[in-house]
Amino acid sequence: MPAYTAPVKDMQFVLHDTLGIAGSDIPGYADLDPAFTEAVLTEAGRLASEVLAPLNPVGDREGCRLENGVVRTPTGFAEAYKQLCEGGWTALDCDPAYGGQGLPYLMGTAVGEMLVGANMSLNMYQGLTHGAYSAIHVHGTDAQKSRYLPRLVSGAWTGTMNLTEPHCGTDLGMMRTRAEPQADGSYRITGQKIFISAGEHDMAENIIHLVLAKAPGGGEGTKGVSLFIVPKWLVNDDGTLGPRNGVTVGKVEHKMGIHGNATCVMNYDGATGYLLGGLHKGMRAMFTMMNEARIGVGVQGYAVAEAAYQSAATYARDRLQGRAVTGAANPAGPADPLIVHPDIRRSLMDQKSFVEGARALTFWGASLIDRASRLGDAQAEGLISLLTPVIKGFQTDKGFDACVAAQQVFGGHGYIEEWGMSQFARDARIAMIYEGANGVQALDLVGRKLAADGGKPIMAFFDLVKTFNRENAADPRMAGFTEPLKASSKDLQAAAMYFMENGMKSPNTALAGSTDFLHLMGHVCLGLMWGRMARAALAALDAGHPDRDFLESKLATGRYYMARQLPATALHLTRILSGEGPVMALKAEAF
Amino acid sequence: MPAYTAPVKDMQFVLHDTLGIAGSDIPGYADLDPAFTEAVLTEAGRLASEVLAPLNPVGDREGCRLENGVVRTPTGFAEAYKQLCEGGWTALDCDPAYGGQGLPYLMGTAVGEMLVGANMSLNMYQGLTHGAYSAIHVHGTDAQKSRYLPRLVSGAWTGTMNLTEPHCGTDLGMMRTRAEPQADGSYRITGQKIFISAGEHDMAENIIHLVLAKAPGGGEGTKGVSLFIVPKWLVNDDGTLGPRNGVTVGKVEHKMGIHGNATCVMNYDGATGYLLGGLHKGMRAMFTMMNEARIGVGVQGYAVAEAAYQSAATYARDRLQGRAVTGAANPAGPADPLIVHPDIRRSLMDQKSFVEGARALTFWGASLIDRASRLGDAQAEGLISLLTPVIKGFQTDKGFDACVAAQQVFGGHGYIEEWGMSQFARDARIAMIYEGANGVQALDLVGRKLAADGGKPIMAFFDLVKTFNRENAADPRMAGFTEPLKASSKDLQAAAMYFMENGMKSPNTALAGSTDFLHLMGHVCLGLMWGRMARAALAALDAGHPDRDFLESKLATGRYYMARQLPATALHLTRILSGEGPVMALKAEAF
Repeated sequence: MPAYTAPVKDMQFVLHDTLGIAGSDIPGYADLDPAFTEAVLTEAGRLASEVLAPLNPVGDREGCRLENGVVRTPTGFAEAYKQLCEGGWTALDCDPAYGGQGLPYLMGTAVGEMLVGANMSLNMYQGLTHGAYSAIHVHGTDAQKSRYLPRLVSGAWTGTMNLTEPHCGTDLGMMRTRAEPQADGSYRITGQKIFISAGEHDMAENIIHLVLAKAPGGGEGTKGVSLFIVPKWLVNDDGTLGPRNGVTVGKVEHKMGIHGNATCVMNYDGATGYLLGGLHKGMRAMFTMMNEARIGVGVQGYAVAEAAYQSAATYARDRLQGRAVTGAANPAGPADPLIVHPDIRRSLMDQKSFVEGARALTFWGASLIDRASRLGDAQAEGLISLLTPVIKGFQTDKGFDACVAAQQVFGGHGYIEEWGMSQFARDARIAMIYEGANGVQALDLVGRKLAADGGKPIMAFFDLVKTFNRENAADPRMAGFTEPLKASSKDLQAAAMYFMENGMKSPNTALAGSTDFLHLMGHVCLGLMWGRMARAALAALDAGHPDRDFLESKLATGRYYMARQLPATALHLTRILSGEGPVMALKAEAF
Repeated sequence: MPAYTAPVKDMQFVLHDTLGIAGSDIPGYADLDPAFTEAVLTEAGRLASEVLAPLNPVGDREGCRLENGVVRTPTGFAEAYKQLCEGGWTALDCDPAYGGQGLPYLMGTAVGEMLVGANMSLNMYQGLTHGAYSAIHVHGTDAQKSRYLPRLVSGAWTGTMNLTEPHCGTDLGMMRTRAEPQADGSYRITGQKIFISAGEHDMAENIIHLVLAKAPGGGEGTKGVSLFIVPKWLVNDDGTLGPRNGVTVGKVEHKMGIHGNATCVMNYDGATGYLLGGLHKGMRAMFTMMNEARIGVGVQGYAVAEAAYQSAATYARDRLQGRAVTGAANPAGPADPLIVHPDIRRSLMDQKSFVEGARALTFWGASLIDRASRLGDAQAEGLISLLTPVIKGFQTDKGFDACVAAQQVFGGHGYIEEWGMSQFARDARIAMIYEGANGVQALDLVGRKLAADGGKPIMAFFDLVKTFNRENAADPRMAGFTEPLKASSKDLQAAAMYFMENGMKSPNTALAGSTDFLHLMGHVCLGLMWGRMARAALAALDAGHPDRDFLESKLATGRYYMARQLPATALHLTRILSGEGPVMALKAEAF
């Protein structure tokens, strides 16, 4: 069974050496000194390793069962969820006005990585709750906030997001779920929603469903869509639970992975719902949840890969098989450990350099969210809006690849469920799909985010890269980072330029290259983060930091990324420049 | 549930237009005229589509159960296997002296692709039998051949290969299974073998296990290993079944996929075994099975991808979601089909261009096997020996990626087991692992095959590419194929040169680039095949072939591969040229 060790040291390096958060001007960051964040991360890590991780294979094996309308979660999940709540982990970055601890989003993200890495399925119950919390926090009335938020923050209630219907996922304009206005100001919601994570379960007193539906008068397509709060149990004015609402679970899906999370078909039969946000402004309100959820899924991408990598590295050090070609490394034993073999190291370095780079990118992104929300910084807002599809799409594609690579290190044992490596790959697979399949992320990036605000965010991103390269031009030790970063950034600019020149008259040109652009940009982002981490590691070494092994390894891992991963940008550019022709040539019936 | 349509037309194009098999000088090929091969493929395709494919999800869902020492295969498997045998499909390319039909290996490969695409798990029962047939056919005594071959050919008995033990897979020198010689010339075999595909089941009268074990006097490591025939039921001199042998199934593994195939732990407790081939020459005999099995696994790589691709293409044509950015393609409907979206097409083209290229490479490889075995052509023997790790490693890596891409086309539905796309990905995953994990294939290619016979095979391969480019230089319509092929072949030569220059003094330099070399060479192989197919398609068009749509699509698919897949060779070369430094930098404890 895989063990999980919280990567506290690496997180501390990103938070403090790389991002220098304690010196930031973002309100609340001054409290985040190294001792404090280490205490929080260590405590969360303990819960992750000792309570959540041992339940991960249990959740996979047992799954969720629908019995007489009630969903039974796997053995131990309810108790572990209770510990999550009691430890205050669900309230970490929530508003103190509603019982939250008021820590920055960044801290919630770091802790979230650990909870996901230890048990992705279990953490989803609280992850979706946080999304519902945010949507109500931003768009709710005072009455709605005081009614729902305290118990979403404490975890006594959980939340869901209901978008997809059997015939539409991405294209929500085709939605059929209806909301009929009632005399008392509420609505009657009728329709069927599918793929509802944590839609029904036995771990909380109530479930607050946020449901997209069409109310009369809004016009065609997504313009007619509104968002509604539909509690499983109606809530009385005094806060006690009233009668059961007209929402029932129709089915628990049989999925490739995340068996421990109940993915439900939800049937709304004239259920009572309350408008959240403006009438026919449902898409906007839903995107508050969606953007947060996309960052959360980007975390899943590398967090599960971190867990898989840890198991692979341990196995590679322990498993004796073959001899090093340069001479026996373990002459007293029957064979050398796998880790002597260059191809095993190549795979582990692929995984490690991705995971650590993605962690840095995600933490930086989370700090941009804090900067935007706590300082009202429009540039930070634009930048994280640009980076969100990259964090979601690139990190989940690469995270899945990393899990598959980690599984491969185990040879035949990797294919046997008992070893747990299959579960990592199967669980990680969903992150490429939900909250907008990665093709949709690429479309969002190329079709929307690149041109947003007159292209200011992407120009700001290029400026960041240029500034970084200029600032480090004088240090010859940084040449192995700045030179590849320059080259890859040039590829990204060439791709963006190509889209600008051709996209208007032939939009398919841009769309045919959208996934390659997403990956190209993902690599440049990780290249930038590796540059920053290298600079931080060199600074710490120069300052006489005692943990030289850690810092030297950090530099070596970064050099690996720059030498062997970042050059992928040239391939992505080549594909992009081949244009729409090869992609669009075939008639539909020729496929 | 996924449907499977046998790709008869595409196979015919490869066999006749591209490889021109009916005009070949290989004995037996003259009989393979287009009408004959079409009849065989159509009949096999019918069995695959109608009998095997519907059982594929059944096998996945039910799996194999161990009950009182007997393994129960999924509902319908035994009956379908019986149809496979009765139709003569197990005997297709076997020796007529033992009841086989004597067709070339190439035909067995083409038919095999269909059976695998329709139901990989079910076909494995006969696939492993074929491996046992070949080992006995090549290495057995006349008595052994007449005792075992007729019933392996008819499928009345099945076969297995027993290599792996709990503590050793790749490193067979550590093997613990022992063979003690008996007075009657037989051996008593004792030990445990794991990951034995089709190790026990309820579909055949007897199972002939081929078991690697150490007999006294052979020395250390693999030098002491011999191969033994260990029948589940001992066989009397008159051919009737005698007493049960001392081999039992200990466990059926719980795997990520291929649930319909029984992967067993086999316990040998003083079981009676008969030496196959020379004493202490077991590795050599086992490699007869192994090389064949590796080609068979390479077939699995693209055959399952073909099946997954078919489902994805159908879904993309049927599922209505969103509108084409260039204007509604289906204005009367609520939305356009997915296939209008460039990123969906990109994914489908990735899949299609891989599958068709891999089919051509595999069929060419199978024809080289026939040339080697039927004409004793040493150059063909050297070439297929070089290509075998590429066909196994590259095609299974890319085949898995293609299945994952096909699954992605389904969005959320791809993650739900009922749709069948998850099964394709889970089943295809094993092909990257078994019969030598792909890292071992890369090691075999770079460490052994490149330098084999003084480098003659790789030089012959480069000559083939050069000759092809020279022969097509005059046709401007071929420039889109020959130019990229030249560039990628140059990358491959540069990589080989780099290994030659550095590998002797620093073998880790070559090993650190081995997987990249495998992929680099895989791309060049597929580039060459696409060049050949393009030339064949142009020739057919020039000759007024009536099916212009098929041929134009073939050319367009090839152009896609050359424009968007083949350029990956430059990235692989860049990684290779970065040497061992980045890969080997970290201390083992730093992972």
